Amino acid sequence: MTPLARFDHYRSRIGRFNPGLNAFLHLRLAEAAVEAAEADARAAAGSALSPVDGWCIAVKANIAVAGLPHHAGIGAYRGDIAGEDAEVVRRLRSAGAVILGTVNMHEGALGATTDNAVFGRTANPWSLEHTPGGSSGGSAAAVAAGLCDGALGSDTMGSVRIPSAYCGVQGHKPSPGRVPDAGVLALSPTLDHVGPHARSVAGLRDMMSALAAAPMASPPAGLAGLRVGVWRAAGQIELTPEVERGLQDACAALRSAGVLLGEAEPPAYAYGRSRRAGLLICEVEAGRIHAQRLGEDPAGFSDSFRRLLAWGAARPAAELEAAYAHVDAVRAAAPAAFADCDLVLAPTAPQQAFRFTDPAPANQADFTAWADFAALPATAICTGVSASTGLPLGVQLIGRRGEDGAVLSAALAAEALFGRPPAPPSYT
Amino acid sequence: MTPLARFDHYRSRIGRFNPGLNAFLHLRLAEAAVEAAEADARAAAGSALSPVDGWCIAVKANIAVAGLPHHAGIGAYRGDIAGEDAEVVRRLRSAGAVILGTVNMHEGALGATTDNAVFGRTANPWSLEHTPGGSSGGSAAAVAAGLCDGALGSDTMGSVRIPSAYCGVQGHKPSPGRVPDAGVLALSPTLDHVGPHARSVAGLRDMMSALAAAPMASPPAGLAGLRVGVWRAAGQIELTPEVERGLQDACAALRSAGVLLGEAEPPAYAYGRSRRAGLLICEVEAGRIHAQRLGEDPAGFSDSFRRLLAWGAARPAAELEAAYAHVDAVRAAAPAAFADCDLVLAPTAPQQAFRFTDPAPANQADFTAWADFAALPATAICTGVSASTGLPLGVQLIGRRGEDGAVLSAALAAEALFGRPPAPPSYT
Repeated sequence: MTPLARFDHYRSRIGRFNPGLNAFLHLRLAEAAVEAAEADARAAAGSALSPVDGWCIAVKANIAVAGLPHHAGIGAYRGDIAGEDAEVVRRLRSAGAVILGTVNMHEGALGATTDNAVFGRTANPWSLEHTPGGSSGGSAAAVAAGLCDGALGSDTMGSVRIPSAYCGVQGHKPSPGRVPDAGVLALSPTLDHVGPHARSVAGLRDMMSALAAAPMASPPAGLAGLRVGVWRAAGQIELTPEVERGLQDACAALRSAGVLLGEAEPPAYAYGRSRRAGLLICEVEAGRIHAQRLGEDPAGFSDSFRRLLAWGAARPAAELEAAYAHVDAVRAAAPAAFADCDLVLAPTAPQQAFRFTDPAPANQADFTAWADFAALPATAICTGVSASTGLPLGVQLIGRRGEDGAVLSAALAAEALFGRPPAPPSYT
Repeated sequence: MTPLARFDHYRSRIGRFNPGLNAFLHLRLAEAAVEAAEADARAAAGSALSPVDGWCIAVKANIAVAGLPHHAGIGAYRGDIAGEDAEVVRRLRSAGAVILGTVNMHEGALGATTDNAVFGRTANPWSLEHTPGGSSGGSAAAVAAGLCDGALGSDTMGSVRIPSAYCGVQGHKPSPGRVPDAGVLALSPTLDHVGPHARSVAGLRDMMSALAAAPMASPPAGLAGLRVGVWRAAGQIELTPEVERGLQDACAALRSAGVLLGEAEPPAYAYGRSRRAGLLICEVEAGRIHAQRLGEDPAGFSDSFRRLLAWGAARPAAELEAAYAHVDAVRAAAPAAFADCDLVLAPTAPQQAFRFTDPAPANQADFTAWADFAALPATAICTGVSASTGLPLGVQLIGRRGEDGAVLSAALAAEALFGRPPAPPSYT
């Protein structure tokens, strides 16, 4: 498709599908149409700026897009209009991408349902009664429903990868330092990572090249001979039967393709302790970031969000210090995980998307937070759809710090094995 | 002096003066004699390893010296024998230095009198009734009394520079990252900096070159035309009349030498807030570091030290987070302090050494903690002795992050103006 045809395609789908999904909150279609026409002219002249020139992108609402509200899903900020683009948005524009607008998210990025008291609930394109996951639920839902080519999310304990898994799209959590965070209304500066969602790993790689302002090295990774450590967390994290079966099927397929499977376990990563440490760091850092608005406009925060921030702020300082020390210890120990393998493979989440009416599982981020703590790149990919639930299944590949290119290359080969993510039935 | 003559000189002085001062706690003179003989042979062969080959060095008791107790002045650790040298000690040895032993310090490096309940009080060589300052009081006293060529201390909010000022020696707080901290029983990993004490700035520079394993760049710094911002903290920090007069005299001398004096003020550095933030970070981080020993052997800590750690640990997490954010803000704002000047000049402490029977002044570290917060190199130099008190006076020169060489070069020129530190009358 030419850039203009592509833009018209998404504009039409947004009009048709967004009202039922509530993924996009704020659109800039008039400006985007002009930008798409410019991209079209570049394409016609054979002078495209990058592989994502003319791509139509959705941006999570905690990332500034000049002229659009910048609120991170928090009511208190809903009147804030971004004066300039976040650096990641600027980089995507420099690569020729067209920004369609901003998408819904869990309030303040601290939560995993994207059921937002102020901005409404975003539905999962695979089932309107199910959550798209969070906190980047709007980003993953928009990509899954085919309302854009790709989206920006942010991942603090799993917020790019979990909604990617629940909605059946590909998502990448970069190594820290690869993608700048200027212009992001943060949850936790210690753990936040901006990252892309797309319907193909090639799309992730091309977006990452623009976001990192450097081509993602991608040696052609064959799967044969690749040493992959499988992290099952047996006896520690309970997988649903569907996720367990999905992981077994994925392992069988990889083994047939010549992958050498072993076992892996994140060093120093005690599950309960890690979960509590990550949450406390998020609550306390977010409490500091939002302190002024909380004072000025407490009603602009939901009761539950406000309670989390107040709870964290009041914990003993020694507990916060121990949380930071735990993250440091997990990070320092991480290289040992790769002593006997090139990559670690794990479920992205212990379950598939759950119903809005069900309680959010407490262990949702147990498989994802390790990469955030340990500063590792991780790519979540869809491995298919579960026959029993009709919902997507996913795994993640986790690599050594800084080796985003190697992880994406392996994910590209794995995607060739599992197939591209299928479109949700109502959004083909 | 040849290395052997030098060693004999200090061995003799230690025997004569250390019993009255209690600077050295643990000596290794037999091993040191062998090492001094080796240095002597190198000197005779014209193959000295560095400018500090054959130098006799004292090491603060929180820095590991293989075979000596490693306790940081804390009773609970008094039976711990270091299995290997700290990296800084290893580097000094590689440069040919002879380690005489370890010296007294304030318990756990958290305090400024070096009046230690377990290891005794170290006296100030200028007056046995006065504190040498702390926490590196043993280091500065040993250098001032001529018991060694130089000493290692550590500076978290001023612990190298304050005792240097109180004892009338030179001391340097390096930029973070220049001097490694492996093998140091830390107070606060966020704020600790190992640094040298010596009786000349050239000695500091030569020790720093060994500690940083890289020559300290030292372009010949003339004072003429140097732009120096004077930080007086007028109306914020009360200087004693002697310190005020000493600062005025130092400024007059620098002006006569062609220095262009202006005014300076550390950006974002609110005095009371900074003091509280620094203390809280130290208390909480030290509480984590000592948590295990505190549990096993609470009586191995003084009541006052234990109370400080418990107090910090119980503060709300939001307060610790705000303290870290404050340090980050001071660090981020620091470059603006050098917009109109090359260096900042300030008193090292607002007063001279005080009597052990007087309460420790609460504002002791108000002038020194900025360089620790802001990641700046700072050299404390002696400017003379106050006629009214007979105690040393000092100022510090603070430079841009990473520019330790430039600060030391300017300090060398200033030392030529003020003269080398005089020897305390009873220790000539």
